[in-house]
Amino acid sequence: VSPERRIATFDNDGTLMTEKPVYTQLYFIMDRIQTLAPQHPEWEKEEIFRSLPAGAAEMIASMGKKGILELLAKTHAGMTTDEFATIVSDWIFTHEHPTLKRPYVDTAYQPMLELLAYLRSRGFRTFVVTGASQEFVRPFAEKVYGIPPHQVIGSSVKTEFKIVNTVPVLVRQPDLFLFTKMGGKVVGIQKFIGERPIAAFGNSHGDVEMLQWTTAGDGLRFGLLVHHTDGTRAAAYDTGLGKALDVAEQKGWTVVDMKTDWKTIFPRER
Amino acid sequence: VSPERRIATFDNDGTLMTEKPVYTQLYFIMDRIQTLAPQHPEWEKEEIFRSLPAGAAEMIASMGKKGILELLAKTHAGMTTDEFATIVSDWIFTHEHPTLKRPYVDTAYQPMLELLAYLRSRGFRTFVVTGASQEFVRPFAEKVYGIPPHQVIGSSVKTEFKIVNTVPVLVRQPDLFLFTKMGGKVVGIQKFIGERPIAAFGNSHGDVEMLQWTTAGDGLRFGLLVHHTDGTRAAAYDTGLGKALDVAEQKGWTVVDMKTDWKTIFPRER
Repeated sequence: VSPERRIATFDNDGTLMTEKPVYTQLYFIMDRIQTLAPQHPEWEKEEIFRSLPAGAAEMIASMGKKGILELLAKTHAGMTTDEFATIVSDWIFTHEHPTLKRPYVDTAYQPMLELLAYLRSRGFRTFVVTGASQEFVRPFAEKVYGIPPHQVIGSSVKTEFKIVNTVPVLVRQPDLFLFTKMGGKVVGIQKFIGERPIAAFGNSHGDVEMLQWTTAGDGLRFGLLVHHTDGTRAAAYDTGLGKALDVAEQKGWTVVDMKTDWKTIFPRER
Repeated sequence: VSPERRIATFDNDGTLMTEKPVYTQLYFIMDRIQTLAPQHPEWEKEEIFRSLPAGAAEMIASMGKKGILELLAKTHAGMTTDEFATIVSDWIFTHEHPTLKRPYVDTAYQPMLELLAYLRSRGFRTFVVTGASQEFVRPFAEKVYGIPPHQVIGSSVKTEFKIVNTVPVLVRQPDLFLFTKMGGKVVGIQKFIGERPIAAFGNSHGDVEMLQWTTAGDGLRFGLLVHHTDGTRAAAYDTGLGKALDVAEQKGWTVVDMKTDWKTIFPRER
């Protein structure tokens, strides 16, 4: 395979890092709500903010990605993208995952970090294709995976360019620009990368289309699903898998059994 | 400037390559229409196809980018993106620009090719941000500028993922996904690159917002406009400039006077 065609795409939550009990971005949103609440007395009226912290995770999860994106917009309005990136970068090093009891930066999977480094050493360009919001995962991916912002594809809202008091700004709009789950991951891949990956990595039914698209190309192709089988060191669950394992068997994709295949799950503590 | 922040963005038509008498993509569309016409008797009814070749360029130009994108969709429907890329790649080497009398591949500006190579040798990542259609410019940019598909941002229509007869495909939709002219260039930059360039290069009023956005950032910034002053070796025109030169003076952007600043305009013939 010629070097310029060596493209590998990775789902984020559950593939590169832990996603249980809830997605990392939900913890971030909850922390932001708690940090910002004193400045927002009007939030008192909204159920989502009142129920914090008990029950908030389930409630946010039930809102769907669109609701989550709107909530995220509310909890980080009024700052530039650079300021937001700094907040995220600080947060992943200073806040601790509630069940794993380690900073979020160290909730990535060690074997996947090694795989990313290995592929890049063999001339691959590695992309994150996440259903979570692009601007949350970008600062994250740069610090944790060494993947630059322009190689992170994710969900986002429309923006509009404006000049406000002689300063050019991008103003967020209430419409979705891209929702990168299921078929939306393939849409994002074609728009952002412009060519078909030769390897793709996922862990849930939301990644099936990306793996189908990747492995349907000509020549050597590789698809891999991470199967969460380790209830002791991490979390064991089949929720969110749908028919992904059946499709994997039918298509000949590799399935990683975390319990037996992974000697180490998380990076050594810093 | 740290290496990962070295990002430079370039307009295509009129900045990296000739855009006169009409945009390269218009010549491509006209050639496609002529190639495909025998298989499409129904085109007889449409003014745009009947008027070929006389007057077509002006007519297409007057349709605006949206109309052009729709026309492009019509003239390359029914093929995969890979097949389309091959057609474009072949075309730029085998077809001759009508006034410059050289293959389209050699209508790029030699000083800009040298600039791209120089910036990359200094650790820059170079991006094309074109108002033309992304899928036309991608194969072009890879062959002519050495810029990979994922570093080409351009206008495109929405696509939808579908499985057709067990084959995963992306189906083009009749809505615009992104229109990357004026403020749309900045929208595209934030979505695709995710950080502010430190240098930007353009030639028309459609590039002003990109240069404003780029040069409004902190630290060292560079904005440059190519001014088409050479009616002998290329084409001299101020159409499409709008107030760009005034803004350049006000903001301190560099303005290239093609006639006096560029010793060579086009690459040596192959």
